[in-house]
Amino acid sequence: MPDLSKPAVTVLGLGDMGSALARALLKAGYPTTVWNRTPEKAKPLVEAGATHAPTVADAVTASRLVIVCLLDYKSVTDVLDTARDALTGKVLVNLTNGTPGQARELATRYDVDYLDGGIMAIPPMIGAPPAFVFYSGSRSAFDTNKQVFEAFGGTNYVSTDAGFAALYDIGLLSGMYGMFVGALHALSLVTSAGVPAQEFAPLLKQYVSAMLGSIDGMAEQIDKQDYAIDVVSNIGMQSEAYVNLTLSAEELGMSPELLAPLGPLMARRVADGHGHEDIAGVVEILKKGKK
Amino acid sequence: MPDLSKPAVTVLGLGDMGSALARALLKAGYPTTVWNRTPEKAKPLVEAGATHAPTVADAVTASRLVIVCLLDYKSVTDVLDTARDALTGKVLVNLTNGTPGQARELATRYDVDYLDGGIMAIPPMIGAPPAFVFYSGSRSAFDTNKQVFEAFGGTNYVSTDAGFAALYDIGLLSGMYGMFVGALHALSLVTSAGVPAQEFAPLLKQYVSAMLGSIDGMAEQIDKQDYAIDVVSNIGMQSEAYVNLTLSAEELGMSPELLAPLGPLMARRVADGHGHEDIAGVVEILKKGKK
Repeated sequence: MPDLSKPAVTVLGLGDMGSALARALLKAGYPTTVWNRTPEKAKPLVEAGATHAPTVADAVTASRLVIVCLLDYKSVTDVLDTARDALTGKVLVNLTNGTPGQARELATRYDVDYLDGGIMAIPPMIGAPPAFVFYSGSRSAFDTNKQVFEAFGGTNYVSTDAGFAALYDIGLLSGMYGMFVGALHALSLVTSAGVPAQEFAPLLKQYVSAMLGSIDGMAEQIDKQDYAIDVVSNIGMQSEAYVNLTLSAEELGMSPELLAPLGPLMARRVADGHGHEDIAGVVEILKKGKK
Repeated sequence: MPDLSKPAVTVLGLGDMGSALARALLKAGYPTTVWNRTPEKAKPLVEAGATHAPTVADAVTASRLVIVCLLDYKSVTDVLDTARDALTGKVLVNLTNGTPGQARELATRYDVDYLDGGIMAIPPMIGAPPAFVFYSGSRSAFDTNKQVFEAFGGTNYVSTDAGFAALYDIGLLSGMYGMFVGALHALSLVTSAGVPAQEFAPLLKQYVSAMLGSIDGMAEQIDKQDYAIDVVSNIGMQSEAYVNLTLSAEELGMSPELLAPLGPLMARRVADGHGHEDIAGVVEILKKGKK
């Protein structure tokens, strides 16, 4: 049963993630109002104690704290535009996936106290400690509702700039996808040669884990824009040896496409006269934008 | 001083890595003969107790165990072809960077007991426990000389197939470079938005480290060629959300080129009807070779 001494919360959008958020709020005892474009999605939540609102405006009116989690920003504005008046003065927490720029735009679109969030978890993880959410935007909205957010997992407020939750979210996902790129290439390579992926996986995890320490040195070089600090294996040598990665993949009949872009990027850095420096210098090229 | 009760070892090639190997042998007391195309490189090693051989044939003749570490395989055959007769019956250990195919070719080129090695370390690490070398090829050559190899660091014999040391080496490097790709993209992204790389680095390391566990599930799926096992966030959803990585980079004026290939690869897998499965299924496309 909802604990009526706790603040009411509204959740707009009951996809897998929205439903997981609503369920976590109910479990923590918050009076929870839910809305979804197709109302069937609300059923299991109503059975768990939620109140179903027939319109967005009704749902928004029910709570001071309104959480929105939809497919994309287009869906968010389509939905919220129908309840502009009801939104006035509310705390709006947007947990929809998007870019920093989209978050900043949304922050000023309605007359609300705006918080943006980047969820670092998949729906089944919501409500347990390993899940955490980056928040950015209104500091007071965060401080006032921090306890509510703890129903989802860890909280990490990063900036008054509403775009920074998405920035941190996308930054970490970029790191993860790069790691996936390396792992998928590696496992494709060894299995193409007949080595079971599960035999190679422990070595791969151990090696990549050991190499994670290099990120500290890269970060220092990037901040100082000085890529000649503590160079252990310069980009000139790495660029020459990198061809073996591509050749080995091709020998085994597999496509090297996932790891392909790093080769020419290193070669450009060497051609620009930085061959004696560290690999992190490629960031200077990336920052100049598209080729 | 060399310990004459220990077996003699020859090192051909005294670049940074070859010199580090020779130095580690001297430190462990092995009578060490060295050769390099430009003899000046031998000087500091001779001062440390090595014997300098004027020709490749002389160097090869001095020891039963011959270690070669040159720039590439072309250099290796150019050098060793000048000492074909002297090589007969020797144990040849090739620690030059190359591909599995190049190692296999070299294994049968001379009348030797052949071992190939993949060094998982940079020169300053040689001689200490974190450095290790993969070996493949002649099992007896490995077993007989294992103690000598321990002068370099850890030893890991992987297969009688001479190409497998390079395969494991390249496999781990691929994993490392993928992780670098993700880290460099991420640090470029956040610094483009004004966040110091050193502020973001600890979060990045922690997150990627936590995500390394996913490799086990990927490996299981790849071995079973069944990508519907334990799907937590299907490739259809990931493929749609991936566009935010590219858009966020572009919003900040940076090039998304390093992480670009994964997007279309996921989209192809979804178009092939596997949208409800896991991301690891992209390996099936990679294995089909070049687009």
